[in-house]
Amino acid sequence: MHAGKKYTFFEFILWTRRDLYRLAILAIIPTVLYHFCNFTFLSISWVPVALLGTAVSFIISFKNNASYARLWEARQIYGGIINGSRAFGVMIRDFLSSKDKKYDVQVIFYRHLAWLTALRYQLRETRAWENMDDLRNIEYARNYHTAEKIDKLEDVLAKYLSADDLTYIVTKKNKATQLMALQSKHINQLVAAGVLSELQLQSLQNAITGFYDNQGKAERIKNFPYPRHFSSIATIMLNLFVFLVPYGLLNDFNKLGTGTLIEGYSIWLNIPFAILLTWVFNSLDVVGESSTNPFEGSANDVPITNISRTIEIDMRDMLDETDLPPAITPENNILM
Amino acid sequence: MHAGKKYTFFEFILWTRRDLYRLAILAIIPTVLYHFCNFTFLSISWVPVALLGTAVSFIISFKNNASYARLWEARQIYGGIINGSRAFGVMIRDFLSSKDKKYDVQVIFYRHLAWLTALRYQLRETRAWENMDDLRNIEYARNYHTAEKIDKLEDVLAKYLSADDLTYIVTKKNKATQLMALQSKHINQLVAAGVLSELQLQSLQNAITGFYDNQGKAERIKNFPYPRHFSSIATIMLNLFVFLVPYGLLNDFNKLGTGTLIEGYSIWLNIPFAILLTWVFNSLDVVGESSTNPFEGSANDVPITNISRTIEIDMRDMLDETDLPPAITPENNILM
Amino acid sequence: MHAGKKYTFFEFILWTRRDLYRLAILAIIPTVLYHFCNFTFLSISWVPVALLGTAVSFIISFKNNASYARLWEARQIYGGIINGSRAFGVMIRDFLSSKDKKYDVQVIFYRHLAWLTALRYQLRETRAWENMDDLRNIEYARNYHTAEKIDKLEDVLAKYLSADDLTYIVTKKNKATQLMALQSKHINQLVAAGVLSELQLQSLQNAITGFYDNQGKAERIKNFPYPRHFSSIATIMLNLFVFLVPYGLLNDFNKLGTGTLIEGYSIWLNIPFAILLTWVFNSLDVVGESSTNPFEGSANDVPITNISRTIEIDMRDMLDETDLPPAITPENNILM
Amino acid sequence: MHAGKKYTFFEFILWTRRDLYRLAILAIIPTVLYHFCNFTFLSISWVPVALLGTAVSFIISFKNNASYARLWEARQIYGGIINGSRAFGVMIRDFLSSKDKKYDVQVIFYRHLAWLTALRYQLRETRAWENMDDLRNIEYARNYHTAEKIDKLEDVLAKYLSADDLTYIVTKKNKATQLMALQSKHINQLVAAGVLSELQLQSLQNAITGFYDNQGKAERIKNFPYPRHFSSIATIMLNLFVFLVPYGLLNDFNKLGTGTLIEGYSIWLNIPFAILLTWVFNSLDVVGESSTNPFEGSANDVPITNISRTIEIDMRDMLDETDLPPAITPENNILM
Amino acid sequence: MHAGKKYTFFEFILWTRRDLYRLAILAIIPTVLYHFCNFTFLSISWVPVALLGTAVSFIISFKNNASYARLWEARQIYGGIINGSRAFGVMIRDFLSSKDKKYDVQVIFYRHLAWLTALRYQLRETRAWENMDDLRNIEYARNYHTAEKIDKLEDVLAKYLSADDLTYIVTKKNKATQLMALQSKHINQLVAAGVLSELQLQSLQNAITGFYDNQGKAERIKNFPYPRHFSSIATIMLNLFVFLVPYGLLNDFNKLGTGTLIEGYSIWLNIPFAILLTWVFNSLDVVGESSTNPFEGSANDVPITNISRTIEIDMRDMLDETDLPPAITPENNILM
Repeated sequence: MHAGKKYTFFEFILWTRRDLYRLAILAIIPTVLYHFCNFTFLSISWVPVALLGTAVSFIISFKNNASYARLWEARQIYGGIINGSRAFGVMIRDFLSSKDKKYDVQVIFYRHLAWLTALRYQLRETRAWENMDDLRNIEYARNYHTAEKIDKLEDVLAKYLSADDLTYIVTKKNKATQLMALQSKHINQLVAAGVLSELQLQSLQNAITGFYDNQGKAERIKNFPYPRHFSSIATIMLNLFVFLVPYGLLNDFNKLGTGTLIEGYSIWLNIPFAILLTWVFNSLDVVGESSTNPFEGSANDVPITNISRTIEIDMRDMLDETDLPPAITPENNILM
Repeated sequence: MHAGKKYTFFEFILWTRRDLYRLAILAIIPTVLYHFCNFTFLSISWVPVALLGTAVSFIISFKNNASYARLWEARQIYGGIINGSRAFGVMIRDFLSSKDKKYDVQVIFYRHLAWLTALRYQLRETRAWENMDDLRNIEYARNYHTAEKIDKLEDVLAKYLSADDLTYIVTKKNKATQLMALQSKHINQLVAAGVLSELQLQSLQNAITGFYDNQGKAERIKNFPYPRHFSSIATIMLNLFVFLVPYGLLNDFNKLGTGTLIEGYSIWLNIPFAILLTWVFNSLDVVGESSTNPFEGSANDVPITNISRTIEIDMRDMLDETDLPPAITPENNILM
Repeated sequence: MHAGKKYTFFEFILWTRRDLYRLAILAIIPTVLYHFCNFTFLSISWVPVALLGTAVSFIISFKNNASYARLWEARQIYGGIINGSRAFGVMIRDFLSSKDKKYDVQVIFYRHLAWLTALRYQLRETRAWENMDDLRNIEYARNYHTAEKIDKLEDVLAKYLSADDLTYIVTKKNKATQLMALQSKHINQLVAAGVLSELQLQSLQNAITGFYDNQGKAERIKNFPYPRHFSSIATIMLNLFVFLVPYGLLNDFNKLGTGTLIEGYSIWLNIPFAILLTWVFNSLDVVGESSTNPFEGSANDVPITNISRTIEIDMRDMLDETDLPPAITPENNILM
Repeated sequence: MHAGKKYTFFEFILWTRRDLYRLAILAIIPTVLYHFCNFTFLSISWVPVALLGTAVSFIISFKNNASYARLWEARQIYGGIINGSRAFGVMIRDFLSSKDKKYDVQVIFYRHLAWLTALRYQLRETRAWENMDDLRNIEYARNYHTAEKIDKLEDVLAKYLSADDLTYIVTKKNKATQLMALQSKHINQLVAAGVLSELQLQSLQNAITGFYDNQGKAERIKNFPYPRHFSSIATIMLNLFVFLVPYGLLNDFNKLGTGTLIEGYSIWLNIPFAILLTWVFNSLDVVGESSTNPFEGSANDVPITNISRTIEIDMRDMLDETDLPPAITPENNILM
Repeated sequence: MHAGKKYTFFEFILWTRRDLYRLAILAIIPTVLYHFCNFTFLSISWVPVALLGTAVSFIISFKNNASYARLWEARQIYGGIINGSRAFGVMIRDFLSSKDKKYDVQVIFYRHLAWLTALRYQLRETRAWENMDDLRNIEYARNYHTAEKIDKLEDVLAKYLSADDLTYIVTKKNKATQLMALQSKHINQLVAAGVLSELQLQSLQNAITGFYDNQGKAERIKNFPYPRHFSSIATIMLNLFVFLVPYGLLNDFNKLGTGTLIEGYSIWLNIPFAILLTWVFNSLDVVGESSTNPFEGSANDVPITNISRTIEIDMRDMLDETDLPPAITPENNILM
């Protein structure tokens, strides 16, 4: 996510400059034809364009709503993981402290950090409908780095897991699911050994159910895109609208100059104004699109690397460890 | 669901081509009458058409909202089933492992897979208000296959159930409900036999309550359509609007040519523009309608066959089985 | 609810024909005065009408949103009752089966069906703000029948309750509440008798709390109408708008004929177009209004008779009873 | 709340008549200046007025949404209190019945009624931002009475509490909170005395937590108004709009009469039409404003006196008391 | 939050006066150029401005929705903290009272107040995207004071914590998290000592989980701003719109004077009207922006200092303390 004050106007222009080239060409063509070839019949009425504009406003605002909701829900899910981790942490620590099981506490804490790791790696994989292959985003991605695309998962897991656990987990299809299953197994063994009571088991098992819930919710947002037919119709309409706007404005800008200093030249104002209008609608769509997949590794992602680190710090602080890792901070204003 | 990048413009045109024929006829009639029969009085004012357009925008955007919400809720429900299944899986496995009850674990796991099967078959049955009898969808359905419409339910259940369970369940009205009831019975027998504790029973019974919740929610979406009076008024208004648009634009396109190269011929532009505008509104409605019933077996369904398989893989992976079935992948971009 | 494909255009016309008569009169008056009496000053500007139209669109779309939300929540509540009933059913059956308490199981199951019965009777009573005294609905109600308005409650309860329970319950103010209270009493007696454990009691008591929740939610929708001031202002504005539309269109339709075949007669087109436009807005309101009270016994109700029967079938199927009652099916497409 | 069919048009006019006087003056001034002083330059263009109208529509519909949501949530909260009270009632009655603790049951039941009483008194106190000091509402309030503003709290509490409890509670800051705290104390004493089990305590303590939740939610709506800056900007914009409308319509109504019977007089139509339009927008705002504070004691309040009585009847009916108080019924259609 | 009746029109003008200066300059430039330099070609058509206006309305209303939702959720979270604190309070008091553990009760109560303190200090820290560095807000902030920016955290904590706890907590990264972890530790020690039962532990541990939930939710709103790309595009569009409005109105105001007293001077009306219109849209955005960060210390914050004090009063009142601190009251109508 962007963790600064604003994207400036120039950052936006830079980010959408390829769109601007396209919009400029669409605006120049009818203006040139009108002026030089005298194709005055190109100046279609504004009425159908305005009606189309209304439909486009509806569909884009609909898409932006959905997109914002997906982003916000994604953040809520990771918020839920923070909260659950803290509550799970104190229970494990305090249920076991009276039984002098420091070693188990640490194993379970670190396995939890491994689960967080496996989860964020799974969420930052690539899906067919995501936008990180977009030139716009490839370029922008040079401003920051995405840990999950650099470090190897196994290497990171090795820091948190015993050798046995690591060997076991690398063969599994859904590593996060099976890591959490190991937690359940460990806790039940502690019950069988009489270290934990059945009531404590119930509380801890509820916590595990909660983690599965949040993992599954994040996977839902990852694996179920904004429906492709809703998305496609929005793109098609926007393109039709953007194509027609320069034709619809021709007449007004032609008349504008009549009797003024710029008589005969006012038609050229059609170009900047058509670009301006179409750019505004296009940018609204670009903004919406860029929040639709909140785990794709873009600059507008939910900062799950940062959040996972926050949890690590809080949990290890509970154990009064002293070599806490630093918080992850924004890089060129982008926090991952 | 569509699991690719986009529906292309041409796929959309192909998909809605029957609507296009109808819209073309509606646009050609007034234009021909105006031009050849000189019925210039057909060029009604745009004012009432625009007002109707506003009402149509409201009702269609309302319908698309509801439709999107139904689709998204359907996916959330199945997400809940994934999460619940994982949590139920680890509890069953770990509560019974210390008691050496591997056999019961497997029976309960596979009965759970049978429940998933019965549920997806029930959800993919046909309802009067669904759209799979629509030519548009019949045609498109050739691009993919729906497992629930090919394999017989009993054959699939036989893979997961003991002979006794199978014989019992086929006589039941709501098979999914009674399969879950068998789970409850089995678990209570394990309590009576002293294998599970009462507290463990409570946790497991809560999981069963959770499955009933999600099953019931999915059945609600299946059995309670987008209210037919809301749906019908939307169709009626859209048709009235689509009928009037070509009349409302006549005047503008007639005047467009005045004094230009195409004087006297510009009226023909009414046809493509009327088609364009009405197609846009019609397509918005088609998109909304096609997500209204997210379990009808259409290309825009929630991919419940795929999700059920994902659960099967995860649960059998928990038991460290080695012959896991493959994930279900998209066919021509369509994931079922 | 309507359980078919669509309300046809003609069913809608039939249903709203009384409104059409009224709208026709409102459209004819100014047209006749304009044409025959030469009251050309009646052709007020479209500007204030359009602004009023915007306000009316807002308020009607607001009302339809609320109305749809009430209908959908009502269905969710009854969905919750289905889910809760299944979960309660398996708990009662399986908690008691090991103790050989078949008789108690059946008494509790049937008392639950009695609760469902009392609840649906209470919900189908009449409230001052409901619309079943509307001519439109009285007429349409001949197409189907509402069980709760035909069979006597006591007679139906007698099928499910012991004589003692029946005698006790008929004296009570809120019968559903006190029937559920009897369930609580019975279960606590089983605990006192040592048949059920305290943990099982907790689970069952939670189920009862869940039923009270859903009952209370349904009563909330029943007893708290769409606020009368919101509803009244919508009606008032709609009527003002519907009154002004024919005046606002006079001018356009007068000019339409100029220089055409129908010069001097085009003013009469004002009548069908004014009717069309006002009918569209009026119908939107009628559709919204008809879902506002989802338990009033109208054709657009939540089908609570059908749902209660579904629960009865599922629960008695759990007990492996063989004389299950048939599902309730639609009558002229209307499912109650 | 209004518990009848509708507010009639005339009730609305009566209710908003002071606004009408103001709107009339605003409409008369420019019309008179235009006609008698020939200040024709007052007829500003409709364009800026229409744009302002769009902004006003947005902000008022936004406010009405929020207002309706607050009212509806308030009703949901009290619905939750009904449901919780019934569930708490059966638990107390049935947990204690086997131990022959009739006296405690009654004390706890009546203390619960005292809590309901204290809560509704607290909610019906006055806040700075509420509207009961508005002339409109003072006048209307003569049609009904608000129990909480007539009877003294201590007198009503005395009917439900022992002398000790009453003495204790009157010294407390938040009486409802401390009454519920007394319930917790009493229940824990019964556990200490061995009358209730720990598991029963857990269920009852959860019920108390639920009551605190609902009390706190109601207090949140009471103490956190619709944000004053959102509210103020809506009022300011509405007033600007209402001021400009009569100027914007001057031109249209002046031209209307040209060549008709009323030439030269048509300008006077500006007055009724400007009043009509501005009244419509003003009334939308009035309707929204009047639901913003659902516990202020206005005719559109949530009927908490009535609901509290309903709970009293249901709970005392559970104890098979015979002298149940009557339900509270509407007075001039207003239910408090 | 503002706890009075209204922000007056003049307070709003004062608050936004710097915007007014800017808007005035934007309006004066084209008017002067048009009138004195005869640059009549500056009077661009209203059509593109109106379309842009629609897009701006959408994006601002979208932003205000999100902003209001963030504010309201923030208040709900703190409402949840109130409710949880009361329920936690009675449990601690009543679970321990029978065991005569008054000292522990007080330590836990006061540590809870310390947690509330640490939390509100953390929430009132500064973030890069917040608006308290805005001149508008710096100025307004002189009307009230923010306790968290005046008193030192350690000094306040010292009032609630033992010396040991204080020493321990000041070294921790997230003080609120570790204070709540101390509560968990204390409670588990009481269980180990046999003072609390395991079931009571479960209830209390749930309460702690609830506090972590609410803390985490508040931190989510604090740390995850309204997405910067959504916010930036809104600002950019608003500025473009505000820039174009005075050009779009030139023509209308020039024509207004024709044939009236003010012929030739009516163009100057462009300035006040352009300011009025652009100020309205600008103020809508300012209102939205000022609720986006509900914990930044602005006049429109959620009053967390006041709420924390309310909890302190309620909890200490439960212990029948007599020297309760006073409630925090508004200062110049602003409640913090």
